[in-house]
Amino acid sequence: MKKIGILGGIGWPSTVEYYQIISQKCQSYYSSKNISGPLPTPEISIESLNMNFSFNNRGSSELGSWDLWDAYFNDALKRLENNGVDIIVIASVTPHSRLTEISKGISVPIISVYEAIGAECKKQKIKRMLVLGTMPTMSTPAFINGMRVFGVEAYYPPTNELKEAVVNIIQRLYENKTQDAAQEINELVLSCVSEMGFSNTAVCLGCTELPLAFSGFSDNASFSVEGYLYLNSTVIHAGNAFLECIE
Amino acid sequence: MKKIGILGGIGWPSTVEYYQIISQKCQSYYSSKNISGPLPTPEISIESLNMNFSFNNRGSSELGSWDLWDAYFNDALKRLENNGVDIIVIASVTPHSRLTEISKGISVPIISVYEAIGAECKKQKIKRMLVLGTMPTMSTPAFINGMRVFGVEAYYPPTNELKEAVVNIIQRLYENKTQDAAQEINELVLSCVSEMGFSNTAVCLGCTELPLAFSGFSDNASFSVEGYLYLNSTVIHAGNAFLECIE
Repeated sequence: MKKIGILGGIGWPSTVEYYQIISQKCQSYYSSKNISGPLPTPEISIESLNMNFSFNNRGSSELGSWDLWDAYFNDALKRLENNGVDIIVIASVTPHSRLTEISKGISVPIISVYEAIGAECKKQKIKRMLVLGTMPTMSTPAFINGMRVFGVEAYYPPTNELKEAVVNIIQRLYENKTQDAAQEINELVLSCVSEMGFSNTAVCLGCTELPLAFSGFSDNASFSVEGYLYLNSTVIHAGNAFLECIE
Repeated sequence: MKKIGILGGIGWPSTVEYYQIISQKCQSYYSSKNISGPLPTPEISIESLNMNFSFNNRGSSELGSWDLWDAYFNDALKRLENNGVDIIVIASVTPHSRLTEISKGISVPIISVYEAIGAECKKQKIKRMLVLGTMPTMSTPAFINGMRVFGVEAYYPPTNELKEAVVNIIQRLYENKTQDAAQEINELVLSCVSEMGFSNTAVCLGCTELPLAFSGFSDNASFSVEGYLYLNSTVIHAGNAFLECIE
């Protein structure tokens, strides 16, 4: 097994999800094999950051405004590399929009969340997808570009009001407050879809907090609620990390 | 806040517990303060080991038989130190019985589980305590000696059969199989106590897997079930790490 590095803490509940999914998938994988002693898990290094610091040091469109933020993530990736990890997974979608900047000087492969989700879309023949995420995710074209490679037309909530509503739900989920969140997400999706006039669309929970709202489905890569197909970015991304680990 | 290092993976479910307890205690601590942005959490490095390797390389009473095991843990502690952590907590009771050997050359303070539990006993005026743990814990005097400093007479299950029963329960909990475990632990305690002829005793869940059996009480440092006072080593130990972190 390869040693996995997880860049986490952004936020901490989704770091738990990634670590649990990888550990459980690994134990299922070995449970049918003839193993002496406890079922193996890969060695894992986790660098868990302080989300208060990263959030308060997000940049704007101004040149250099992301420098502190970029360095905070780049340093953590370097520590993972120094720990001897063979692959890295970032347990949060948001930093992927600045992957080029934060991975400067890192030679260990970083498993992209866009590629993991794009491959899943291809498998499920998804052609159009609403992406719900943090404000940086929904303000930059990175996710949309990442999906285009896989023939998927991705789009964000069409108004600022709807984007703000997504962000409010995420903020509560970060503090592990899950009550009513699933219902609110469903209503929000309905508003986005009717605003855009689309009849056929999947929904990507494109922020590692959002799947925490759907506790009954937290193990599934995708699931249907009230007629919409949801993709769970956490399960898809962490599942890819596990597959890379045992390859 | 100090940066925390967690030596984990032995096993992974208790590593999740330590990480969650520290993160949640930190968010509760800051929730009453005037904080801009998401509630802070400390920066945390986790080195998660492969329990299959450590289990299969446990030594015996033979000289040098623990060398590989000691080096495995010592190397992981060194990686935590290199990551710049200020304090270290080992998310498992078992390795504490070889703390002297595995902490060679480490200058970062390691928060002892014995001192955390001893202080809690003193606070709760506990004088006698049955310790349930892994076989290495129940075969070495380290836990008993650690408690004596705090005026607590600690003892292990009095027969090999009873010790084996504890180990079997732990093995299932490591794989997150919690069904019937609480009931079995309770019956086991009854057998130990009647065998020893003690009428007044507390019980230390002295292995980080065991508290996972009592899901309803997983947040409590101590709790009563069927007339016995149980101490949750995970909550007590992780709580101490949090206090050290904000000190």
